[in-house]
Amino acid sequence: MRALRWDGHRLAVARDVPDPVAGPGEAVVAVRLAGICRTDLEITRGYLDFRGTPGHEWVGDVVAAADPALAGARVVGEINAGCGTCAACRAGLARHCPTRRVTGIVGADGAFAERLVLPVRNLRRVPDAVPDRVAVFVEPVAAAFEILDQLGSVAGARAVVLGDGKLGVLVAQVLLQAGAAVTLAGRHPEKLARAAALGLAAGDAAPGADLVIDATGSAGGLAAALELVRPRGTIVLKTTVAGEHRLDLARAVIDEVTIVGSRCGRFEPAIDALAAGRVSVAPLVDAVYPLDDAAAAFARAAAPGTFKVLIDPRS
Amino acid sequence: MRALRWDGHRLAVARDVPDPVAGPGEAVVAVRLAGICRTDLEITRGYLDFRGTPGHEWVGDVVAAADPALAGARVVGEINAGCGTCAACRAGLARHCPTRRVTGIVGADGAFAERLVLPVRNLRRVPDAVPDRVAVFVEPVAAAFEILDQLGSVAGARAVVLGDGKLGVLVAQVLLQAGAAVTLAGRHPEKLARAAALGLAAGDAAPGADLVIDATGSAGGLAAALELVRPRGTIVLKTTVAGEHRLDLARAVIDEVTIVGSRCGRFEPAIDALAAGRVSVAPLVDAVYPLDDAAAAFARAAAPGTFKVLIDPRS
Repeated sequence: MRALRWDGHRLAVARDVPDPVAGPGEAVVAVRLAGICRTDLEITRGYLDFRGTPGHEWVGDVVAAADPALAGARVVGEINAGCGTCAACRAGLARHCPTRRVTGIVGADGAFAERLVLPVRNLRRVPDAVPDRVAVFVEPVAAAFEILDQLGSVAGARAVVLGDGKLGVLVAQVLLQAGAAVTLAGRHPEKLARAAALGLAAGDAAPGADLVIDATGSAGGLAAALELVRPRGTIVLKTTVAGEHRLDLARAVIDEVTIVGSRCGRFEPAIDALAAGRVSVAPLVDAVYPLDDAAAAFARAAAPGTFKVLIDPRS
Repeated sequence: MRALRWDGHRLAVARDVPDPVAGPGEAVVAVRLAGICRTDLEITRGYLDFRGTPGHEWVGDVVAAADPALAGARVVGEINAGCGTCAACRAGLARHCPTRRVTGIVGADGAFAERLVLPVRNLRRVPDAVPDRVAVFVEPVAAAFEILDQLGSVAGARAVVLGDGKLGVLVAQVLLQAGAAVTLAGRHPEKLARAAALGLAAGDAAPGADLVIDATGSAGGLAAALELVRPRGTIVLKTTVAGEHRLDLARAVIDEVTIVGSRCGRFEPAIDALAAGRVSVAPLVDAVYPLDDAAAAFARAAAPGTFKVLIDPRS
């Protein structure tokens, strides 16, 4: 089959990649659409030393599965595959299993390919009302909902989302539909204008926020968040950057700020919110490229002003 | 009166300091004993640009007060004096009032003096059963109890306290009496031996802790804590250091660690715990110096192996 391969130096489509085979408890999925995430761009800069097929935001059809009831089902997939037996897995937190594989990121090939394989227990059916271009956002929307899982209610909170990229826009929508008063702070007028069309109030963030989300993707995000959060307020860190932060944390101690690291989330609330239209993602799609044009797709994804570029491995 | 003065360059006892006068709602207190805190040592290195009389851990007798019922009472005092009208003050969090004065630290003279003045509402009576050498620890014990106020229950948690200084030993005792399984990790065998005599299990900290307290007082404490905490675990930052932390926070995001800044606490639970003997502090006293020997007292407080040096302004 065809698949986009990263060998540590070069990103290129290979046409002779062996078809994946489902092992016990696994399924083979034919990919309909896959989204390029910031993490994919980071991988091509060396993040986590990944080798293989990247891609972890996708929607596809089950073509072979241990569970025959799944044959033909349109699905999305949780990206963390745990061992199933450790304390984290037993607690329902496979995404914190110390030996987990992560689709397209750690030890498992991903979705920029005609087919991929993953555990049946990671699959979630997509409701018919959710089109492919929406379903492909389930993974990043789940990462946004993870904030609610971690913090509980944000109703009535004055929240600032730092970063007008795709994750920032999704986080802002998730907080808004959960009852927070949200300001989206970013540096890209054209992105903020598109976010405003989604009902998001863009603007300068004033100090004194109850909640600040660092979705900047840059090492300076936390320091900026510390300037904006009120005493005893909360900062959620969504930014993973290679390299060191340099910052003065005395402010966090003196003001008793809570800083919450936040990564992947459960898919269920994301699927529900997308099916109900509480989070709007279709306007974020800038372009869809065929798999053979993946290099151009990556370049477009990295260009200023881009929210989301999709790859269609069927074309 | 006599008072220890810091002028930004030199620490010296002055004998001609004007007697403090109680304004409306204030009281004058004759100091019985005052403790030297790490923050006092930091002040003499420039911390917060303080000028005046340091000292914020103390016990004393009310000699003049707006409230005559307080005359003669033996008291301790919350160190943060808020404006009384802002949102933080109205919420009972004067210690986060943006215009607060802080005894001996920000905008208010402290306790290394024969007398000091502070708001009546900051005073707390000391039960007769609590001797001066114990009561002088109410402020740092309250800072340790603040962790419980912030986190709620720690019962059953595997906790590691990093730092075998006085604060670390107090925090370890507070967590222990609240039901946590506590390991005290430090680098000073003589301090760890004294901590062991207080019932604290010293030793090497293994990774996978539910809760790690950084009481190291050094910029490297947070990075060390990140190595020890389990995924989705909690780190409490008690360390305020001048200057920048340099650390990789990707781990905090990937493992969804929560980092909680923690500073001063309410005095009530600390007074109760000291009165009931649930926290033991008398063995931590290394020496008591007369006020005129304050320079020697500060040198002793800064020496390796010292837990707590007290100053007696009556002698």
